Amino acid sequence: MDTGDVFDPQCPTRVVLDRIGDKWSMLVLLSLRDGPMRFTQLRTRIGGVTPKVLTQTLRAMEQDGLLTRKVFAEVPPRVEYTLTDLGRSLHGPLSVVAEWAERHVSEILRCREKFS
Amino acid sequence: MDTGDVFDPQCPTRVVLDRIGDKWSMLVLLSLRDGPMRFTQLRTRIGGVTPKVLTQTLRAMEQDGLLTRKVFAEVPPRVEYTLTDLGRSLHGPLSVVAEWAERHVSEILRCREKFS
Repeated sequence: MDTGDVFDPQCPTRVVLDRIGDKWSMLVLLSLRDGPMRFTQLRTRIGGVTPKVLTQTLRAMEQDGLLTRKVFAEVPPRVEYTLTDLGRSLHGPLSVVAEWAERHVSEILRCREKFS
Repeated sequence: MDTGDVFDPQCPTRVVLDRIGDKWSMLVLLSLRDGPMRFTQLRTRIGGVTPKVLTQTLRAMEQDGLLTRKVFAEVPPRVEYTLTDLGRSLHGPLSVVAEWAERHVSEILRCREKFS
């Protein structure tokens, strides 16, 4: 497959960047790093996310093959989310971005103050 | 400064991730890699961006200290956008993410097809 030109709106790679550039997807990926989690655990872990947005994010990530959703036949039913190998492979790249953000956050906030 | 917990909505690092996780900022950064560009050049390079969104993106990136806006006293005035050292330092991390996206785009699109 031709991955094309990322500057072209029709480029598949750009479509993928739209999804993985999403803040909530990034936080879900980081949360699931240490193992499977249930919906309520994720919701508690990721401050500020609404149930609706978390549901949409998890569904989109499942469709992209980044995580799997497993329902256990219990009463009440238990639903667990687990990263796939593809999802785990994204940890490296995202960690590099997160480290950059942590290293430069003070500088960026100082720049913002000058404009406010 | 305490960069805090990225899962906390008040965490400064999360604020930074919101901005640099933005698709348009990423495309502006890649565009300016080889040198300064004018607004109309950027608009042409980045397919699908509206003038309004490009203006907002450039202003936000200027406020974050990622680029500078320089006005040349010509008729008509020439305005050029140039990456700062901080902006250039983000190229490495973003390239890692873009490479991941290009490498895995086929796999992701196959997963999406199964759900549609």
